[in-house]
Amino acid sequence: MKVYAESLKNFVADILQKVDISEENSRIVADSLVSANLRGVDSHGVTRVPIYVERLKSGAVNPDPNVTVLQESDATLLLDGDDGMGQIVGAKAIEKGIEKAKKHGAVYAGVTRSSHFGTGAYFIQKVLEQDMIAFAMSNAPSTMAPWGGITPYFGTNPYAYGIPAEKNSPIIFDMATSVVARGKIISAEQRGEDIPEGWAIDKEGRPTTNSGEALAGTVLPFGGPKGYAMAAMIDIMSGVLTGAGFGPHINNIYGDYDKPQNVGHFFQIIDIRSFMERDQFKQRVDQMINEIKNSAKAQDVEEIFLPGEIEFQNEKERTENGIELGSEVYESLKETAASCGISIEDYLR
Amino acid sequence: MKVYAESLKNFVADILQKVDISEENSRIVADSLVSANLRGVDSHGVTRVPIYVERLKSGAVNPDPNVTVLQESDATLLLDGDDGMGQIVGAKAIEKGIEKAKKHGAVYAGVTRSSHFGTGAYFIQKVLEQDMIAFAMSNAPSTMAPWGGITPYFGTNPYAYGIPAEKNSPIIFDMATSVVARGKIISAEQRGEDIPEGWAIDKEGRPTTNSGEALAGTVLPFGGPKGYAMAAMIDIMSGVLTGAGFGPHINNIYGDYDKPQNVGHFFQIIDIRSFMERDQFKQRVDQMINEIKNSAKAQDVEEIFLPGEIEFQNEKERTENGIELGSEVYESLKETAASCGISIEDYLR
Repeated sequence: MKVYAESLKNFVADILQKVDISEENSRIVADSLVSANLRGVDSHGVTRVPIYVERLKSGAVNPDPNVTVLQESDATLLLDGDDGMGQIVGAKAIEKGIEKAKKHGAVYAGVTRSSHFGTGAYFIQKVLEQDMIAFAMSNAPSTMAPWGGITPYFGTNPYAYGIPAEKNSPIIFDMATSVVARGKIISAEQRGEDIPEGWAIDKEGRPTTNSGEALAGTVLPFGGPKGYAMAAMIDIMSGVLTGAGFGPHINNIYGDYDKPQNVGHFFQIIDIRSFMERDQFKQRVDQMINEIKNSAKAQDVEEIFLPGEIEFQNEKERTENGIELGSEVYESLKETAASCGISIEDYLR
Repeated sequence: MKVYAESLKNFVADILQKVDISEENSRIVADSLVSANLRGVDSHGVTRVPIYVERLKSGAVNPDPNVTVLQESDATLLLDGDDGMGQIVGAKAIEKGIEKAKKHGAVYAGVTRSSHFGTGAYFIQKVLEQDMIAFAMSNAPSTMAPWGGITPYFGTNPYAYGIPAEKNSPIIFDMATSVVARGKIISAEQRGEDIPEGWAIDKEGRPTTNSGEALAGTVLPFGGPKGYAMAAMIDIMSGVLTGAGFGPHINNIYGDYDKPQNVGHFFQIIDIRSFMERDQFKQRVDQMINEIKNSAKAQDVEEIFLPGEIEFQNEKERTENGIELGSEVYESLKETAASCGISIEDYLR
């Protein structure tokens, strides 16, 4: 069925309020999830609501975190997430980070004791609203072996950045450091589908196209050893440096229901004016975008895209025509809603 | 022939002094180049001396740059490189950046109007000497088409980082955002060798294994569209944000002999103490390294390496036993030295 973003947001926010999330914070999480659906990143959309609710109910995630500053300097900020939801904790870090970047020119903001933060793009969008440059990264439970190994060590550690433009849409890049996000393998497994070759190896280290075997095995890093090194960097900045868990010392969102995840995040926010007039910068970005869009295309390529451009097209289309919810996702949302005393039919029809 | 690092450094420094580089600055460049050879990255080693000398002689590179601060805030620094050699300009940026990071906790340092900076790892090592975390990136002349295109737009834009450890060697990662550094294709072409499939496409966009056709065509980004997005980010931070050239608006080191390159760099330096006690951090890094080294290996894998570990082994071996100079490199160095009134036999035998 197709549902409109606004109804879906209200539905998600109301469910979260039933498990003791404040109205304001429930809106942040609902925004982040539905924004992922709008952008076509369904693996990080409302499909996560059931597991989030389960973890909130079990006490593994704190519904009302007291996010505090552990340490700060002119150029840095370290926050304690108090085991809250990553979207809520991250939004606080972004809010404080923007304030600091305005005052001191730029900031590095680390976060410890947090949880799965959804898509990095959500935080990037918040910073782009201020016409600033943003980077967002997070570590995640082990799913990827070190290069040459077979035992999962690093997570699919996401890396995102955002660059404001003048007339064009901003550039928003948001990737997993695995060949694909683990969420896509989870989705394939839920649909009973195989995955393409090159995405993962099974638990013995053999290549596999079976989504179930892939989930039991380990996802491959993008670009081989270079992706491995990127995943390591993200784990060091998000986990080792912030005091959060790292490597296998992060608890899994699926399983470990009684334990906080202890995920860490790392954000970077740069006030463009520290380097150049904003308008000049944005015109230069536009020049780059236009030059790339008008560049000669390879055979069978109809259009060259900038990072995030396809997601903006998805967002426009899905805002107008609605978001397609698969029946499995619908059923699981219905069940979760019912367990919170909410009827899905009151929101989505 | 095999030569020792010290003799090679003296040789390179003396050549550079003959083209009006100060003794101090000649030592920086010689250090950077020979350090690359020691680490096994010969494509960025002394093989670059002839082209550097040619550009210094033509006036395209300023032998005695007056590196000045264009703009600064607590957390940021923007430097003008005055068309100097990238190693010299970059070393100044690192020096000022370290000072600033000590005072304000961390820094972002952009550099405009610079030139080819050699290996990013060299700057990373300078920051690691201070027990700080470092990132270094630079844009470069167009060699890589946007994803889906055939006309070179981005350079092989290098990205490097360094993380101090306690008992282990620090983690030093230094990559090109292309599948391989263009320098490796140049080396293959100089040796008349083919290159593996997947490294590059020819000027019509067809896959090629011919190193000459690859140099005329375009290098592929690592990890497909994700590498393309990383190259774009590096060009934006190093070029667009600093006011330097970007995309095709950077002059080539080989060719454009009368024009400065207008390359830009972007450095990040983080004082660990802004987040955590140094010792604690380094012990946590050691824990990660040890866990990875002791992790189960895939079949036929003898050892799992951390980023930069093989380069440390190379450095140890080559410091002891000397650096192998191919006869072509030797001859070109001999010729360049002679053109500066220096006899290579006085240094290397």
